[in-house]
Amino acid sequence: MIKLETKHAFLKENVKDYQESVDRLHQQLMNKECLGNDYVGWVEWPNTYDQEEFARIKQTAARMREMCDVFVVCGIGGSYLGARAAIEMINGLYANKKPEIIFIGNTFSSTYIAQVMEYIKDKEVCVNVISKSGTTTETSLAFRLLKQFMDEKYKEQAKERIVATTDKARGVLKAVADQEGYETFVIPDDIGGRYSVITPVGLLPIAVAGIDIDAIMSGLKKAYEDLADSDLDHNAAYAYAVCRRILQNQGYDVEMLVSYELQMSMIAEWWKQLFGESEGKEGKGILPDSATFSTDLHSLGQFVQEGKKVLFETILMIDRPTQDITFPSDAQNLDQMNYLSGKSVDWVNKMAAQGTLEAHVNTGGVPNLILTLKDMSAESFGYMCYFFFRACAMTVLLLDVNPFNQPGVEVYKKNMFRLLGKN
Amino acid sequence: MIKLETKHAFLKENVKDYQESVDRLHQQLMNKECLGNDYVGWVEWPNTYDQEEFARIKQTAARMREMCDVFVVCGIGGSYLGARAAIEMINGLYANKKPEIIFIGNTFSSTYIAQVMEYIKDKEVCVNVISKSGTTTETSLAFRLLKQFMDEKYKEQAKERIVATTDKARGVLKAVADQEGYETFVIPDDIGGRYSVITPVGLLPIAVAGIDIDAIMSGLKKAYEDLADSDLDHNAAYAYAVCRRILQNQGYDVEMLVSYELQMSMIAEWWKQLFGESEGKEGKGILPDSATFSTDLHSLGQFVQEGKKVLFETILMIDRPTQDITFPSDAQNLDQMNYLSGKSVDWVNKMAAQGTLEAHVNTGGVPNLILTLKDMSAESFGYMCYFFFRACAMTVLLLDVNPFNQPGVEVYKKNMFRLLGKN
Repeated sequence: MIKLETKHAFLKENVKDYQESVDRLHQQLMNKECLGNDYVGWVEWPNTYDQEEFARIKQTAARMREMCDVFVVCGIGGSYLGARAAIEMINGLYANKKPEIIFIGNTFSSTYIAQVMEYIKDKEVCVNVISKSGTTTETSLAFRLLKQFMDEKYKEQAKERIVATTDKARGVLKAVADQEGYETFVIPDDIGGRYSVITPVGLLPIAVAGIDIDAIMSGLKKAYEDLADSDLDHNAAYAYAVCRRILQNQGYDVEMLVSYELQMSMIAEWWKQLFGESEGKEGKGILPDSATFSTDLHSLGQFVQEGKKVLFETILMIDRPTQDITFPSDAQNLDQMNYLSGKSVDWVNKMAAQGTLEAHVNTGGVPNLILTLKDMSAESFGYMCYFFFRACAMTVLLLDVNPFNQPGVEVYKKNMFRLLGKN
Repeated sequence: MIKLETKHAFLKENVKDYQESVDRLHQQLMNKECLGNDYVGWVEWPNTYDQEEFARIKQTAARMREMCDVFVVCGIGGSYLGARAAIEMINGLYANKKPEIIFIGNTFSSTYIAQVMEYIKDKEVCVNVISKSGTTTETSLAFRLLKQFMDEKYKEQAKERIVATTDKARGVLKAVADQEGYETFVIPDDIGGRYSVITPVGLLPIAVAGIDIDAIMSGLKKAYEDLADSDLDHNAAYAYAVCRRILQNQGYDVEMLVSYELQMSMIAEWWKQLFGESEGKEGKGILPDSATFSTDLHSLGQFVQEGKKVLFETILMIDRPTQDITFPSDAQNLDQMNYLSGKSVDWVNKMAAQGTLEAHVNTGGVPNLILTLKDMSAESFGYMCYFFFRACAMTVLLLDVNPFNQPGVEVYKKNMFRLLGKN
């Protein structure tokens, strides 16, 4: 379901030369013997996820969809990016929004928080608060405001409208949920935030948005099966992982993930967390960047074409659009667009992509990797997640770096807590 | 209104050493003798803009606001980024949206276009199509669909609801507008797309969003006056321009523009076009990148803190938030957040910024420039635009590159037209 093309990438090493390393690291990953092996619960997740909890996610989602106009998701990092990315990719940006999904708990911006609180004031609201420990400051701060709002608005019924996704037993949020009687879902101990979209963290909001989460799990499983073999001639995820290493060896320190669909722009943000947080350690790693074409050809295109050669592009093509349009003709043709009459708009988009590839590669000399995904369905989303998970783990293990921790994220928090006077 | 702090930037050259070059280039720019001097109409724009047309923009905007639920802006690049950035910055992301502003004509995505057309179907609609020549393919394609929709829905009245912003006399869009009897506004010949937010291109949609465009012009004028003197001790725009050059000399090829307000994220996109398209030529330039903190500290923070040292950060701080919240206390304090009770949420945001600065600079060794803007008002928006315009012109002229053309953008178009079979 995902194909990789490397012929426009100007690779100066042979991908197959990495086969031995890839085989060894693949074995380590599958046997949970790799660096960071405390956090590889996602690897077997397509086979091991809790079916009973999964059924409960669907029931709860159906209940929430009945009850609310607005579903407020309170979380940060992996506890918001995955769900938002999935919902935008699968539903699109202007789909019928009932309920509307709003994200909060991901910022200290007082203006943003105040505007959201004002926006939801007279609407029917449900809330999903997501935090493993319950001590993530952005999320705790917003949730106190939300909880007071819900308690005041719904009194005794508030607890029917608030769901907590948190640790199975410990932590501040678990304690609040138990005391208040909220329904809870579990964040597994061995799956980190940036992998959590395939757990209740992502699946509950995605299901509330009306998306078929069974299809996501079936895509996940399909990718698991397709990627069982570590042979670089067949395993596109690992081949992509190797290409990234080769391109950084050639001096490219920035990867621009490019899509031709505006509804994929949050997927790029999710991907940035996955790769940036996994790889950016010990002074190593490729800076993940993104753009949406042809839109951003009119902003970043000039730099890619003729600017300093610091980046390579990874093009995430979508084979089949969710909707297409046949371009109409016009009797007068004053706008001179009749040469496209009867053509599919998606075909025009593909020709733009082809023309850009030629421009950036042949004229600009920019290496391009191409990943082609079948469509923007729930199943393809699940497949793509697992594909990038495995690609990311491999590309970082090839650097001899632990892909699953994020020690650097703590530094700002420590300083902030001191400044806030937290004991 | 904008302050620059450089003490966390690890500059290895003295900013003042550039004074002579800056003085010379400043004179060239003000006298229209610099590289690309055909496109410096924006320099004197705060004094020379057409007052009569400006008054007409306000009248038309008021009329449109009465008539529509949805105001559809059809344009790409500078013909959408500036207006969208301004509206989000000034109004926020969840402000009362009447009318709602929707952008189209900036993509070939058939799904996006189909969803927007479906979304507006039963609403009251007005349209602003924006293109200098009328031959921008993304915009022409969407506008043909919009025009057919409007003609069918409103018959003879459609022309009252469509406004064209285009060349004063020539081009395909001007011809359509004249034949159909649309009201038109002029895109000046000597102001390029990425500078056009201060012309009718940006001002009409911004005014339709209910924003005081007089305040924007007064901010623009204030910046013009503040930046009259090219002395680097006083001219923060030029000092910022020089710092960028010094940092690239030190090996930093990526600049990450960081804000702590989600509603500033489109400003970063607009800034990316301004700097990327102006500077990315002849194999030169700094790749413009962006992030919103503390949100993205939970995705890109790890890379900035500990990854490969390829970037410097430019922090765009907002001194006063549009709205603030006093954090409430809670009798039970189960969430352990009472240490913040009675504190302003904006103060917490500022402490997060301070803690992050210390983390990235002192621990991470990442150079940080800090720009502080008074607030997110219309006046500050105008001021900031002019500040970045002058900073951008200077930083690119210091590279001995023409800041005002974009030859590389044509390459993909030429290939695309061939593939589309356009004669």
